[in-house]
Amino acid sequence: MDADQVLAYRSEFPIADTETIPILDTPGRILAEAIVSDINLPDFRRTTMDGFAVKAASTFGASEGSPGFMTVRGRISMGKTPDFALGPGEAARISTGGMLPEGADAVVMIEHTEALDESAIEVYKSVAPGQHVVEIGEDFTQGDTILKPGSKIRPQEAGLLAAFGREHVNVYKRPVVGIISTGDEVVPIDQHPQTGQIRDVNTYTLASLVRESGGEPLIFGIIKDDYQALLDACTRALDRSDMVLISGGSSVGARDFTIEALSALPDSRIRVHGISISPGKPTILARVGTKAVWGLPGHVVSAMIVFTMITRPFLYHMAGREPERRRAFRIPARLGRNLASVQGRVDYVRVRLKQDEPGGLIAEPILGKSGLIHTMVKADGLIEIDRDTEGLDKDEPVSVIPL
Amino acid sequence: MDADQVLAYRSEFPIADTETIPILDTPGRILAEAIVSDINLPDFRRTTMDGFAVKAASTFGASEGSPGFMTVRGRISMGKTPDFALGPGEAARISTGGMLPEGADAVVMIEHTEALDESAIEVYKSVAPGQHVVEIGEDFTQGDTILKPGSKIRPQEAGLLAAFGREHVNVYKRPVVGIISTGDEVVPIDQHPQTGQIRDVNTYTLASLVRESGGEPLIFGIIKDDYQALLDACTRALDRSDMVLISGGSSVGARDFTIEALSALPDSRIRVHGISISPGKPTILARVGTKAVWGLPGHVVSAMIVFTMITRPFLYHMAGREPERRRAFRIPARLGRNLASVQGRVDYVRVRLKQDEPGGLIAEPILGKSGLIHTMVKADGLIEIDRDTEGLDKDEPVSVIPL
Repeated sequence: MDADQVLAYRSEFPIADTETIPILDTPGRILAEAIVSDINLPDFRRTTMDGFAVKAASTFGASEGSPGFMTVRGRISMGKTPDFALGPGEAARISTGGMLPEGADAVVMIEHTEALDESAIEVYKSVAPGQHVVEIGEDFTQGDTILKPGSKIRPQEAGLLAAFGREHVNVYKRPVVGIISTGDEVVPIDQHPQTGQIRDVNTYTLASLVRESGGEPLIFGIIKDDYQALLDACTRALDRSDMVLISGGSSVGARDFTIEALSALPDSRIRVHGISISPGKPTILARVGTKAVWGLPGHVVSAMIVFTMITRPFLYHMAGREPERRRAFRIPARLGRNLASVQGRVDYVRVRLKQDEPGGLIAEPILGKSGLIHTMVKADGLIEIDRDTEGLDKDEPVSVIPL
Repeated sequence: MDADQVLAYRSEFPIADTETIPILDTPGRILAEAIVSDINLPDFRRTTMDGFAVKAASTFGASEGSPGFMTVRGRISMGKTPDFALGPGEAARISTGGMLPEGADAVVMIEHTEALDESAIEVYKSVAPGQHVVEIGEDFTQGDTILKPGSKIRPQEAGLLAAFGREHVNVYKRPVVGIISTGDEVVPIDQHPQTGQIRDVNTYTLASLVRESGGEPLIFGIIKDDYQALLDACTRALDRSDMVLISGGSSVGARDFTIEALSALPDSRIRVHGISISPGKPTILARVGTKAVWGLPGHVVSAMIVFTMITRPFLYHMAGREPERRRAFRIPARLGRNLASVQGRVDYVRVRLKQDEPGGLIAEPILGKSGLIHTMVKADGLIEIDRDTEGLDKDEPVSVIPL
């Protein structure tokens, strides 16, 4: 099955419930409500400079050689509505962020004036109406939709929520993702592996990827290659999770166990059994009730790549994230060497980025078996080679998916 | 002062203490110890495929037309050391991840064999020594330094720590960053601003940026434009923080208060008073004892840009992060329109990225006053225009700093 066909199953899975959290906890979360501007922002005319509020027309013709003379009506206090209005030829001292008085429509920077005494200045430069002024509603107009549900909240979106006085906001809950490692050869990380055994790496890489992708990992430990043990573990995990990841079982026998156990779960449908990608071909997806259960490859690199390219979009969907609301850009680069590829499947190749000519980047492929974690530690990202491509040439433009 | 001269002051500030945390909490943290391989990884020869372990030489010459005949000695159990050795012409059933027996040096994939009976197979393809095998130490050799202090831990580094049985690891503590907003016109976000007042946005954008950058924000609220109040707030904040950010005070009078208050703190030296960047020129840096105190601009966009380009490198330094240990790549793009720039200062321009021809990106400048937060909400990143450049032309290559 093609990756695109697999991704189309996302719509079968429900979006998470919502919860209300304080604004300081929002960054990285996904907004679950539309934020509509209930005020104009700003709701008064502010200056962006220190200087003198004036009627712009009063400065027309002023220059170094022929300064304009203006009467100073007073100083505008920060945070207060001025209690006087300006007439022609009048000015008021104002600091950055201060409110323009009635009659003023521009600000002359302090650098372009000279004080004659407390109540008179000379102006050396004319200003246009609106100059150095933020108009009412120039940032947001009352009634504007300022943020849409599905947006990922960054520091600037948190600031925007603050500007509108939203101390608390409604976000999607983080989907809980159960994580099961399988394999007779896998031992917990606090044990010293005997010859023939390896420590459980996938639990930790997958838990970290889940957290990084907006989910909440829940660890169910290591299960032996045994049908009943796997069935029991899946049942326990499904009881407490919104999605379940089973890694391991890449061998034919173990894969059979996984398929059998997943098929035996109540209200289960096997949706995917093999994806035409490399690495990651022997991936399984079952829909159990409304929950997704994944059989991921056992090799650490394969499991990480399948998670990144296939599972993560499902997690984003369940977490309420609208991909077009905050695009994760691929990084343009040029390929560092020729790469062969098998037609009929999509290949994911680990690359390391190197700086090229100013601004340019070279993507150097990292080759190595998919059981070798050092290749992922060296990698900055992945490139995708299409199913219809025989390979890519050195210097071809590529798009790097950051890791 | 140039930005580079400001950044050179980083070395005046100490690196954070360290703490020991569980592996599951490490992603995003900065490693504070060197991790040295205490074992070979793997420490036995594993297969990457399901099939038959063999001595490669026994398969030489085997083909579809002329299959080789081999005797099957048995099945290798996962996680166990095989209790038999293979001689010439002998094979053993093996699953992915299984340990090769003595005498075997390669694996024939199951697809390239046919079982004649329980104890005999035909082999249709020859294999080379080492084929489909991960050698001892192929991932890491005992004694290798596998991670250096200063590395940011990603999911794959967490997996690597798991592979070496590191349940707990030593990381740098997150520096505590005190945040103070100033301005007579600034009100807390739970208040409805009167005309002339604005809600406190900078506390929330800066707290979010601090957290995103590996620090722990500590909020000290809003201080009026008053020398003594600011001095008291700084004293309180310094008592509990490793670094302090004061935002606001962009007006000349408020800037004077800030300089006066920072100068009055015990063991204080003003290191920076104005940086030749735009926005962000009126930035102040004081060293108070061993702590950095920043006077950041009041405009939200300016404060965010100064934090991103100037303050964050200081925070990374204090957090123990070695920038070269996990590079944050700038995204190559082409400029969407001509941009003018003033010589003698570095300009930072907000841009929105758009997809261009396959793989390429266009950086569209977002213009707008630095008091308007919507320009940051629309932005995907910043581009930097050098101090010696008069401007950039449409279609010129640029490097985008993600926001």
